[in-house]
Amino acid sequence: MNPPGRVQTPIEGLQTLLHDDMDRVNRLIRERMASEHAPRIPEVTAHLVEAGGKRIRPLLTVAAARLFGYGGEHHLRLAATVEFIHTATLLHDDVVDESSRRRGRPTANLLWDNKSSVLVGDYLFARSFQLMVETGNLRALDILANAAAVIAEGEVLQLTTAANLVTDEETYLRVVRGKTAALFAAATESGGIVAGASDREVAALREYGDALGVSFQIADDLLDYGGASVTLGKNVGDDFRERKMTLPVIRAVAAADAEERSFWERVIGRGDQQEGDLERALALLDRHGALAATRRAALDHSERAKAALADLPEGAIREHLEALADFVVARVL
Amino acid sequence: MNPPGRVQTPIEGLQTLLHDDMDRVNRLIRERMASEHAPRIPEVTAHLVEAGGKRIRPLLTVAAARLFGYGGEHHLRLAATVEFIHTATLLHDDVVDESSRRRGRPTANLLWDNKSSVLVGDYLFARSFQLMVETGNLRALDILANAAAVIAEGEVLQLTTAANLVTDEETYLRVVRGKTAALFAAATESGGIVAGASDREVAALREYGDALGVSFQIADDLLDYGGASVTLGKNVGDDFRERKMTLPVIRAVAAADAEERSFWERVIGRGDQQEGDLERALALLDRHGALAATRRAALDHSERAKAALADLPEGAIREHLEALADFVVARVL
Repeated sequence: MNPPGRVQTPIEGLQTLLHDDMDRVNRLIRERMASEHAPRIPEVTAHLVEAGGKRIRPLLTVAAARLFGYGGEHHLRLAATVEFIHTATLLHDDVVDESSRRRGRPTANLLWDNKSSVLVGDYLFARSFQLMVETGNLRALDILANAAAVIAEGEVLQLTTAANLVTDEETYLRVVRGKTAALFAAATESGGIVAGASDREVAALREYGDALGVSFQIADDLLDYGGASVTLGKNVGDDFRERKMTLPVIRAVAAADAEERSFWERVIGRGDQQEGDLERALALLDRHGALAATRRAALDHSERAKAALADLPEGAIREHLEALADFVVARVL
Repeated sequence: MNPPGRVQTPIEGLQTLLHDDMDRVNRLIRERMASEHAPRIPEVTAHLVEAGGKRIRPLLTVAAARLFGYGGEHHLRLAATVEFIHTATLLHDDVVDESSRRRGRPTANLLWDNKSSVLVGDYLFARSFQLMVETGNLRALDILANAAAVIAEGEVLQLTTAANLVTDEETYLRVVRGKTAALFAAATESGGIVAGASDREVAALREYGDALGVSFQIADDLLDYGGASVTLGKNVGDDFRERKMTLPVIRAVAAADAEERSFWERVIGRGDQQEGDLERALALLDRHGALAATRRAALDHSERAKAALADLPEGAIREHLEALADFVVARVL
């Protein structure tokens, strides 16, 4: 996990620190994602579980509860809940995006069919609600049900903002919260609630999760254009080809002259993309400082995440959470 | 609603009796299915709401609560919850079945796209959980979360039983519970719980909802082969063409000789269907008494539903529920 010469990431640090809890979370996930009666369910879910993933959302829930020395078991159920909600949205996203690969493996919709992905996703949603109901904590239930609604609303919103040049930053941030930040915030907030944190501490946990998620997603959208400096990496341009209105493009469109505007209308609005268009888009992003501005936005939210930690108990967990806020933007520094 | 010369159906009777509550349920449904931020959501959901439907599930919840003279408001939230779960499953079913029409109108997946149907379905699931959490009743939450899991499991099971000749009655009943009976049972049971019914009464309500749902679905599956006597109606044969293993076929396959078995293997197992095959299938169902046996099964569950009512308070609501149990099988008498 930590080869000599390589510094441990904050995620690995949290995984080491919270190892026992995370083992129990993983056991709970494996138990609950099975189905005695419909063998297709464990086939599809095992495929997803084996694909790995860093389990960052359940890690946040466990970390938030342990910050307050929580010694019960409800944080494990909430951690499994947020991972199930996340996995269900991945299954449905791959259907919606017609994806064929995730985490370097073929997607479930490709290996089985769209039907299985839709229905097994529904099954995981239902299992997530069973798990959270078992905690008997109505505040946590309220937070997680609200997060599920914000996630679905953000996904629908994203459908209608793609290829839509009038998309503004406010709408973009709403999509980002749906895609990433709502579940991060629910993960940290519900962990604090079940551990009996004060209202002020719960609010700080929510702020941290939200800011971390927004920062992470903006950095991701920036990397899709190669990062803060224009370099054509192997995964550059996916969002461009899918005509997504992410922050770099929103900034460049806002600053466009008439001729540039007609370029954006052609490539994003009408989707008429030709050889050399991605290079031209990157040059325009660079000319108007859109990449630098996007980078600043990611850093601002990372700072907001770290500031929120001031209200939370000091110690190793808080230090790792602080390092995590730096880590999610380190990719774009 | 009740033209002269036509007797009121039990559903219309309940709608009349519970008119005020159902008005409030419908208002709640319209309020909560909207979304301020993603205009696609109210477009899709309005399409579904306007398509009508009898609201039989929320009617069952309201009826169950009112049986015990409940005077609060939580039964309205639970009624809207069950309708949202039902509507979400319809949206996802139409994607899975690639349907183009529902209730005589084009489906949402046809009018918009599969993406919108998947994601708006997810939104309605999330809204249903928000609504049930608002009741603060953990027993009702537990029942509804379990129903959601049984529904999704049944749908996945149905995927893998289609075209699978070894499907037995036990598996068929599990699919039927997922498709229909689990939500009927959760609708009546949660209505009783929120009204403070005794454990014995809650169990009777659950039994009634389950038996009503099973009876309804078996009758539906029988009608897909024209009812208890062989008649080629306009909707006959959909399940045959989709190679679904419903009770009539399960019974006929169980009684098949070698030559008949190879017929079923060709038309259901391999899906190689030719002119005249449906007529041959109907003749085999008739020869082995499979239609009569299916009719008897529907009637048995209808009787079970009526028997469960003995433990519940007498009065107009109970009379309508009793008539409803007869009504769902009247189509196959």
